[in-house]
Amino acid sequence: MKTLKIYGSTGSIGKSCLSVLRLKQGDFALKLLAAGNNLDLLKKQIEEFNPEFATIYNNDKVGELKKFLAESGLNTKYIPFEKSFEIYSDITLSAIVGSAGLIPTFKSIPFTKRLALANKESMVLAGEFINGECEKFGTELIPVDSEHNAIHQSLRAGRKNEVKSLILTASGGPFFGKNLEELKKVSVEQTLKHPTWDMGKKITVDSATLMNKGLEVIEAHFLFGVDYSNIKVKIHPQSVVHSMVEFVDGSIICQMGKTDMMLPIQYALYYPERVATDDFSFNFGESLRLDFFEPDYETFKSLKLAYTCGKGDITDRIILNSANEVAVSYFLREKISFVSIPDFIEEMLNKIKRERVSSIEDVLEFNEKVKKICIEEVTGGDF
Amino acid sequence: MKTLKIYGSTGSIGKSCLSVLRLKQGDFALKLLAAGNNLDLLKKQIEEFNPEFATIYNNDKVGELKKFLAESGLNTKYIPFEKSFEIYSDITLSAIVGSAGLIPTFKSIPFTKRLALANKESMVLAGEFINGECEKFGTELIPVDSEHNAIHQSLRAGRKNEVKSLILTASGGPFFGKNLEELKKVSVEQTLKHPTWDMGKKITVDSATLMNKGLEVIEAHFLFGVDYSNIKVKIHPQSVVHSMVEFVDGSIICQMGKTDMMLPIQYALYYPERVATDDFSFNFGESLRLDFFEPDYETFKSLKLAYTCGKGDITDRIILNSANEVAVSYFLREKISFVSIPDFIEEMLNKIKRERVSSIEDVLEFNEKVKKICIEEVTGGDF
Repeated sequence: MKTLKIYGSTGSIGKSCLSVLRLKQGDFALKLLAAGNNLDLLKKQIEEFNPEFATIYNNDKVGELKKFLAESGLNTKYIPFEKSFEIYSDITLSAIVGSAGLIPTFKSIPFTKRLALANKESMVLAGEFINGECEKFGTELIPVDSEHNAIHQSLRAGRKNEVKSLILTASGGPFFGKNLEELKKVSVEQTLKHPTWDMGKKITVDSATLMNKGLEVIEAHFLFGVDYSNIKVKIHPQSVVHSMVEFVDGSIICQMGKTDMMLPIQYALYYPERVATDDFSFNFGESLRLDFFEPDYETFKSLKLAYTCGKGDITDRIILNSANEVAVSYFLREKISFVSIPDFIEEMLNKIKRERVSSIEDVLEFNEKVKKICIEEVTGGDF
Repeated sequence: MKTLKIYGSTGSIGKSCLSVLRLKQGDFALKLLAAGNNLDLLKKQIEEFNPEFATIYNNDKVGELKKFLAESGLNTKYIPFEKSFEIYSDITLSAIVGSAGLIPTFKSIPFTKRLALANKESMVLAGEFINGECEKFGTELIPVDSEHNAIHQSLRAGRKNEVKSLILTASGGPFFGKNLEELKKVSVEQTLKHPTWDMGKKITVDSATLMNKGLEVIEAHFLFGVDYSNIKVKIHPQSVVHSMVEFVDGSIICQMGKTDMMLPIQYALYYPERVATDDFSFNFGESLRLDFFEPDYETFKSLKLAYTCGKGDITDRIILNSANEVAVSYFLREKISFVSIPDFIEEMLNKIKRERVSSIEDVLEFNEKVKKICIEEVTGGDF
């Protein structure tokens, strides 16, 4: 039985992971459930899964969690969030959304054999440091993101030095095919209607701007060590092909299947084994149509910005990510428009003074500074 | 430098193989060029490639070949066709079309490390004996057919016991979507217009009837040890996805690329390496559409017949293949109609008395007998 820690258990990926555990009980011993804020759900998860430890990031809720554990009669023990990193486990699922996921991801690496990574911001903000830490401690990194997971699977059909390019597929979001004028009028409600995947709000907005794909391009660069010029994006509205690998001999290997995050999560937990915990069969139906288009880099500027920042300095990536997080959160509160998101990022990239970032601590410090500036700017600016 | 023998060098696959050799000279030493009938082309190939040995199947042309070699001043030596099997080589490409390919394939197995198999009839007629012989001599079998080659590549993304099903794609041929009434009127000329692949005449007719896919289903069964109930066919008119493997966890891995036989041939020659001998990149263009449909088993009866014969006795498969070969050759000579092809096969399956077939010699004997009966019947019947 393998041991497992879950960071972000009450989020979309965390919940899917617990659904995977439900399917084949006894394969994993749960060491830790760590939530950010949703104590009500965390309590239910603790009651159902009886982890050895539980914790919550939001300090205001620690007292209530402790009280619940004391009164519950369960074996689950409370552990402070920062202390939890040092609990040893075979697998750590990093599924906290946004830049808050960086520290749990990084700090868990020395204490886990395998990092199942669903937090793309870790790689965007600090891919070089995450990779360095994994190498140092011999920690295996398996991506959970459906695209990178598909690439991980497809890469098995060849050798590392035989890879010519990676092709990430993108659903295109609800606004695929729209022009800039049309984008200016889109509402939050329209933006949150994702055509194929059911995800959290932040990532759904990122899918609509194509920033999600941009962040994934950067993530792919660090995960697979492929140059940005050899990482391509194709709009694939049906989201059936989850991504592809082109080899030097012209063969393209792709992975396709149901749009259900349980699949890549299960893969990351059981790899190198493939297991049939449930019927996850893809249904072709009477007919299946798959389309692939070139992205419109001019209208969906966020994707272009991500490539530029990826090729640039680590500080560019930090500004890209933070400015996007701030802009999206203000867009969700209807304070700025959809098209202002990339405009705001661009302005922050031009405005914010760079600093020397040469450690994970520097990343955190610069990231906090950038976030503060962005928050000040977003309300003061014209967005 | 690896040694290579080519059976069927003047056919479509043989010529493509020589094109692969042209791209990166010095990787292979040509031990043998063996042609069936086309002496003119064989002479040119000998002059260009200087194989150690050359031979021709058609006895009437042996004298001329010997004379050519004697007068040419080249080092290439003549060897009788049946003697050539015993020339040792690292790789033997079996690319003779039709049941004539069985003996060179089978008899070469003890004398080669790798059999690159493009002759599907070998597997259809005698899959159990080919597999047994390969096992006995430790000969590796790499399929060259684009579908089976795609499956070979896709299988690398998992373990053998994790395979749930194989999904062979079929272009559907020029008559995809037509009903039986429409099929009754199609001409030889229309049949030979294949939408995506440029192949020999026999295989092009087989593509139009879907018998080609039927033979491939049987071939896949023997190549990969998968039950017929887990081998599926999808009509995929664009022929971009060459085939797929479904794993037990629901993941489908597929291989796609250019419709150029040089690609799978190169793969079979160089495996496990992937090499960039040329730019074989697949071009997605501005947009790419891929469709997948269920085959129409009632209208394209040949495919259904192949499944039935596959699940049946080896004699069923021999009758299926021979009756089809005879019917196609008479169709090409405009003696019978397109829809008569499966009708004729069905009648032969009902009519021909079965015999005990328990060796490769039995296969040959029964196959000759069946062919004779079929030829007698095809002109006498109502086809």
